[in-house]
Amino acid sequence: EDDVAVARRSLEKGTPIVHEARTFLLRDDIPAGHKLAVRDHRVGEPLRKYGQIIGFATADIAQGDWVHTHNLGFGKGEGSGETALQLPLEFCTEVPTVDYVGEAERRSFRGYRRADGRVGTRNYVAIISTVNCSASTVRAIADHFRGEALHDFPEVDGVIPLIHKSGCGQHLGGEDYKQLQRTLAGFANHPNVGGCLLVGLGCEVNQPDALVQNTGLVPAGQIAIGHVEPPPIFVIQETGGVRKTTQAGVEATLKLLRRANQARRTDCPVSELIVGTNCGGSDGNSGITANPALGLAGDMFVRQGAGWVLAETTETYGAEHLLTRRAVTREVAEKLVALMRWWEWYTGVWGATIDANPTPGNKKGGITTIYEKSLGAVAKAGSTPLVEVYPYAARITKKGLTFMDTPGYDPVSVTGLVAGGCNLIAFTTGRGSCLGFKPTPVLKIASNTALYERMQEDMDINAGAILDGVPMEDVAREIFEALIAVASGKKTKSELQGLGEEEFAPWTLGPVM
Amino acid sequence: EDDVAVARRSLEKGTPIVHEARTFLLRDDIPAGHKLAVRDHRVGEPLRKYGQIIGFATADIAQGDWVHTHNLGFGKGEGSGETALQLPLEFCTEVPTVDYVGEAERRSFRGYRRADGRVGTRNYVAIISTVNCSASTVRAIADHFRGEALHDFPEVDGVIPLIHKSGCGQHLGGEDYKQLQRTLAGFANHPNVGGCLLVGLGCEVNQPDALVQNTGLVPAGQIAIGHVEPPPIFVIQETGGVRKTTQAGVEATLKLLRRANQARRTDCPVSELIVGTNCGGSDGNSGITANPALGLAGDMFVRQGAGWVLAETTETYGAEHLLTRRAVTREVAEKLVALMRWWEWYTGVWGATIDANPTPGNKKGGITTIYEKSLGAVAKAGSTPLVEVYPYAARITKKGLTFMDTPGYDPVSVTGLVAGGCNLIAFTTGRGSCLGFKPTPVLKIASNTALYERMQEDMDINAGAILDGVPMEDVAREIFEALIAVASGKKTKSELQGLGEEEFAPWTLGPVM
Ligand SMILES: [Ca+2]
Ligand SMILES: [Ca+2]
Ligand SMILES: [Ca+2]
Ligand SMILES: [Ca+2]
Ligand SMILES: [Ca+2]
Repeated sequence: EDDVAVARRSLEKGTPIVHEARTFLLRDDIPAGHKLAVRDHRVGEPLRKYGQIIGFATADIAQGDWVHTHNLGFGKGEGSGETALQLPLEFCTEVPTVDYVGEAERRSFRGYRRADGRVGTRNYVAIISTVNCSASTVRAIADHFRGEALHDFPEVDGVIPLIHKSGCGQHLGGEDYKQLQRTLAGFANHPNVGGCLLVGLGCEVNQPDALVQNTGLVPAGQIAIGHVEPPPIFVIQETGGVRKTTQAGVEATLKLLRRANQARRTDCPVSELIVGTNCGGSDGNSGITANPALGLAGDMFVRQGAGWVLAETTETYGAEHLLTRRAVTREVAEKLVALMRWWEWYTGVWGATIDANPTPGNKKGGITTIYEKSLGAVAKAGSTPLVEVYPYAARITKKGLTFMDTPGYDPVSVTGLVAGGCNLIAFTTGRGSCLGFKPTPVLKIASNTALYERMQEDMDINAGAILDGVPMEDVAREIFEALIAVASGKKTKSELQGLGEEEFAPWTLGPVM
Repeated sequence: EDDVAVARRSLEKGTPIVHEARTFLLRDDIPAGHKLAVRDHRVGEPLRKYGQIIGFATADIAQGDWVHTHNLGFGKGEGSGETALQLPLEFCTEVPTVDYVGEAERRSFRGYRRADGRVGTRNYVAIISTVNCSASTVRAIADHFRGEALHDFPEVDGVIPLIHKSGCGQHLGGEDYKQLQRTLAGFANHPNVGGCLLVGLGCEVNQPDALVQNTGLVPAGQIAIGHVEPPPIFVIQETGGVRKTTQAGVEATLKLLRRANQARRTDCPVSELIVGTNCGGSDGNSGITANPALGLAGDMFVRQGAGWVLAETTETYGAEHLLTRRAVTREVAEKLVALMRWWEWYTGVWGATIDANPTPGNKKGGITTIYEKSLGAVAKAGSTPLVEVYPYAARITKKGLTFMDTPGYDPVSVTGLVAGGCNLIAFTTGRGSCLGFKPTPVLKIASNTALYERMQEDMDINAGAILDGVPMEDVAREIFEALIAVASGKKTKSELQGLGEEEFAPWTLGPVM
């Protein structure tokens, strides 16, 4: 049914293409991952890929033409008066039944069971800055525990500085303030965090006391039986400056390390995993290899009773009709639709449009329109029912497939997912993302073999094998097994390189005042 | 003429106060730095400080009452229908004449004269990330040059990672994109930077090639005579991943270090200095000690032909009428007024108001309204004519007093000032800021002696001495001399502590997509 095919490797003009038992010749050079037309189209006509409309011809297109931004757009073409697709929305019309695995097939992993019942896949101590003005102090505390300094704490994965650019010059009690507090609290009480401390300057808008009070913050790793304890707080202006606060912070961290080091991995059911998904630097292959393979792995996790989280609202835009049909209630579906309207407003404030996406890298990789990108991106969701839609950085309390509202931008999106409690991240890429993230490990899945080979030290899985004939289900199974191994402690490529501290990037709404 | 007085130290209820040769008793406890009423006011009446209206009584106020947020507001009181001060604006009506110093009084400092004619006060090599996705790689390159690794480059102050949270998920060609490119370019070609290299991921919106092209980027320290050279660029996706790019980046940095190490300090006139000003964590004393003393020092620099930059638009709001009178042209004055209207729109987008400022710390310190804060803050501008108004991070090309549009938020404001070319920063604080900034040194001026003593390792100058009877001009002279010494290489307190890398915080307008 599709009007385009994707070139697995770059093809020269004149190459014969066999389609529906007939042969035609390429009229253009086609870069790898890019689209070619398998039939003629007049300007204004819709073109389909994945069985769905991905855009409209902005010029006449002949069979064998390269199809990209020069002849395909997201609107109905010049003069049509319509600038975007009108999607027919259906609510809860195709809600699948989850075929949960039986007792015998239930899988387990080795995790850190926390006092609040949740399970960690890692065991970090976190030093959290409430405001950029305490960031250098937080880094100095964390830097004290590099390398040999952790020798006596073999059960601890590291001391991480959670540093950002916000926390003051923001509206006290406003959306930006609430979102930052929710984000920081999500890290402070994350099951992968065995202990944390907060460091503030003193005069910031985002006061550490208020953060603890507003979010009911009790670190997951610091809950004693029948006794909850907020994290230790250090305020530079009260402690007498950077050096004294660093010294006090180092001593407090040592105490946290001693306690965190008592944690032990035990057998835990895979249903305790909440896997956040993301894609970054997508190419034309992402939607046919890495993303659907990851979606299939997601179905396996959901059948185990685990959580599977789709995010990146900007890359779901134009494909929401696929998810609303699978929503368990009309309320859940309408939350998703409301997000799309909010995003149209938010991007419109600056005269931008939500479909400014795809990025230059996506376009180089062969993705032409936001609809094409979104249709490929939602393949990560697999095929199970959509059970809930969450705001950015909100605690994910439901298992099964859920959605979190985040930008598509990788570090900001993953920060929201981890704040929500994801204890694993599965990340697909076509151009080559190098994202790591602490305290949650990130498994990286290449959409094509060339990328996998070029960036071997950064890629964990090669979904490009699907283009060479490996069944998609085999790659899905490989991802499923790899994620369980990582959950039990096996290091990912980005962990082996020590990445994942700079990527902490809370979503700043503004205004910055 | 003032309706309030400021308590130098905390005073108890019942303490007798002598005012205009008559004595009254305090009716409340007054915390240090807070205001007390020196005469009675009815609800709705204006109250003056610094001879200017700082707000309106929201309740009846009696002589001896504590005056703060419980009885003073920025509007004309309930039911008046007016929510903000209406300022009578005058343009260019009080433009002072600058009394430039004669030949004999002209001062010099020891600076790095760059090939483009500007002068550096420091000599750093900068590793700049175009996008957060290359931040970990940039840090790995910079971390290679900590401590002993710089032994062979005694003339170089350090290798700094310029890392941020943006660079993708933004509108290609939009305001946010342009502002980020302007900011990064301002650091890449800063006179305090003897060499730089750019590191990108490859698929980001903020492409390094476009950054160089759009900004005409040639690093100040890398200009050979008659031959301009753009900075080296490394792209992770082309180089084959994080480790290989780190290795290549380290090698390239070594070359930059060898070249930067050839720079030598020479005698340069003080007119080559461009001093950016800022205040953070202000208290009730800031407006009577540190800020006016700094303004007086600014007048001394302007008389030397140097540049002096006021910023923090949110903290100038409500005091713009003082600056418009001193503007050299109506066009310059109107640029300032237009900024205020833009800020009302920008903060209004999120339902915030520009006067959400002062911060909790400011309020604890005794500052009640944005007008009071602004009147105290603009004292940093001194008394010379306003010669230009610049957008955020724009190159400052004029000497004398200029204004740059920035948020008040310290790291974001100072990032804009340094991007504009400031080779010194003078920073006043009442509560105790710990801000350092690379590549530009920051001199910190305490508004009160208690702070200076409590945070000795972070404060450079004690303007609180003015409350103990030291003439303001003496403190201004101390600041003037300290800034010249710092320009010549003397380390500030924050430099001695190694601070100033985390504070790099480009202003993100959004939307983050
Ligand atoms: Ca068609
Ligand atoms: Ca993406
Ligand atoms: Ca993404
Ligand atoms: Ca301030
Ligand atoms: Ca400030």
